[in-house]
Amino acid sequence: MGQFPSLADIGAEFSLINWIQQRSQHTRIDSILEIGIGDDTAILKPQNREMLVTKDVLTEGVHFRLSDATLGQIGRKALAVNLSDIAAMAGEPTVAFIGIVIPRDFKRVMIVELFEGLISLAEDCDVKVAGGDTNVWDGPLVISVTLLGLAHVNGSVLRSGAKPGDQIFVTGALGGSLPSGRHLSFEPRVQQAQQLRDHFDLHALLDVSDGIASDLRHILQASNVGAVLNAEQIPIHHDVDAALSQETRLQHALCDGEDFELLFTISADDAEKLVDQNPLSIPVTRIGEIRKESGLFLRLGTQESRLEQTGWVHQ
Amino acid sequence: MGQFPSLADIGAEFSLINWIQQRSQHTRIDSILEIGIGDDTAILKPQNREMLVTKDVLTEGVHFRLSDATLGQIGRKALAVNLSDIAAMAGEPTVAFIGIVIPRDFKRVMIVELFEGLISLAEDCDVKVAGGDTNVWDGPLVISVTLLGLAHVNGSVLRSGAKPGDQIFVTGALGGSLPSGRHLSFEPRVQQAQQLRDHFDLHALLDVSDGIASDLRHILQASNVGAVLNAEQIPIHHDVDAALSQETRLQHALCDGEDFELLFTISADDAEKLVDQNPLSIPVTRIGEIRKESGLFLRLGTQESRLEQTGWVHQ
Repeated sequence: MGQFPSLADIGAEFSLINWIQQRSQHTRIDSILEIGIGDDTAILKPQNREMLVTKDVLTEGVHFRLSDATLGQIGRKALAVNLSDIAAMAGEPTVAFIGIVIPRDFKRVMIVELFEGLISLAEDCDVKVAGGDTNVWDGPLVISVTLLGLAHVNGSVLRSGAKPGDQIFVTGALGGSLPSGRHLSFEPRVQQAQQLRDHFDLHALLDVSDGIASDLRHILQASNVGAVLNAEQIPIHHDVDAALSQETRLQHALCDGEDFELLFTISADDAEKLVDQNPLSIPVTRIGEIRKESGLFLRLGTQESRLEQTGWVHQ
Repeated sequence: MGQFPSLADIGAEFSLINWIQQRSQHTRIDSILEIGIGDDTAILKPQNREMLVTKDVLTEGVHFRLSDATLGQIGRKALAVNLSDIAAMAGEPTVAFIGIVIPRDFKRVMIVELFEGLISLAEDCDVKVAGGDTNVWDGPLVISVTLLGLAHVNGSVLRSGAKPGDQIFVTGALGGSLPSGRHLSFEPRVQQAQQLRDHFDLHALLDVSDGIASDLRHILQASNVGAVLNAEQIPIHHDVDAALSQETRLQHALCDGEDFELLFTISADDAEKLVDQNPLSIPVTRIGEIRKESGLFLRLGTQESRLEQTGWVHQ
């Protein structure tokens, strides 16, 4: 590993590794981590549970702009999107590895702000930064996070388990995440996914990154099923401009993306229980049904329209 | 995970994920991998061995230039430096996660060439690409590889175990890696490190990335010891220009870096056995000794000079 070398060339003598080691002290995760930062690799102790691995790269100009977000928000989001992936398996995040390519004109205080955002969220989620690699260059900012997690003791929830008759649910509300800046401050649904898995036999689960009109397809494809969504049940986030027509607001909820809410399917029996007694502190909403016939449809009143990734077309 | 989305926007419709899945089929690693590419995270089966994790980021203009290296070589090196980190623990590499940020003007054939270089080496080392994230942007090429491995059954070899009296060894020969292009084609010492660990109680081990004048310090610091190297024993690579003075050639061997050879210490008794019967198909050379007194010195004839990261200073 690059092991976060001293960044003497971008300002004051500054050992990022020492700062990160001091900043990210945990005890709980130490039961998993044998060796963190400081040798050629990290060493994790054997676990009698399946291990989850996810990796997402955030790049300046594509996933964020330095003019629209603080460095703390950017660091936070780089971890948050990976936490959301672990949540999408109902897993428990454990250790993170951070690869970062820093523009040469960044000052020490800027790098600290970026890592502060990342490590604060890591602490909130009991995640420890266990290694990584730091580079400085003349290009834009790049942050690559690899996050490891432990599978839920009841088993991971894949995209491939949806069955005809399953009811489709979503946590929270959808739409307007990018213009409102919510995509920089969203709470990854790590706890909620584990709680749902504690109580229910989730059949299929993912996190909504591209909008449910797009992401639900992954479940349908992997499970070889179709689905119908009920337009009036889709929870529209208050970040979607209330002055817009109801139809336009619905399009935003279906297609905006970057919601990072949980989209999942459970049996009709479990659906009744979940509606009766939601174990979460955030809303869960039943929004549709899995069916045998392929294709994704949207029910508006008594009419069904084919739902495309960009929304639906009037018939 | 970003899951290698379709790269329709950079040329012909092209699903990198499908290509990688087809290209990287293994059976051995499938005993470790429950789910690879295709869901929100990869899932690894529980292993009754410690797990190693390393992450290195290679960036255009810093670690390589597109004018000096083929894309196949660049892809290969992005994995090779991580393999070298696993070797530096005497571990067995298993699964890799690739985060890549691709310049927008790259053609499909270029991306295939890059991954072909990476995956060919992965196959040679029984490593499977199990996930990652692909992005396209207007900036230079960035490749971030996270490599997981299993610890050697006899235990990992850290940097902190060197003891006074230990003999210092290095595999292969040193120097001239960058100008010769050897840094693009080096063979990570994965097998050799495991074989050494099979036969010997290695006290400390790392891979030489910055030159032994620099890297040996990591062992000295972690082990709280000093060392003396014998100038005439340092194996100088034939990539170092033979027309140079012996002194200049030695400086190259000590300081050039990017050798990715193994640097390790073992007891004096084991050293005799290793010199008598080297189990490797490549040379191992005794180059010095660990001692209690701190500091790194170079013995030239009967004189000892302090060895700095940039070489030694005549006294």
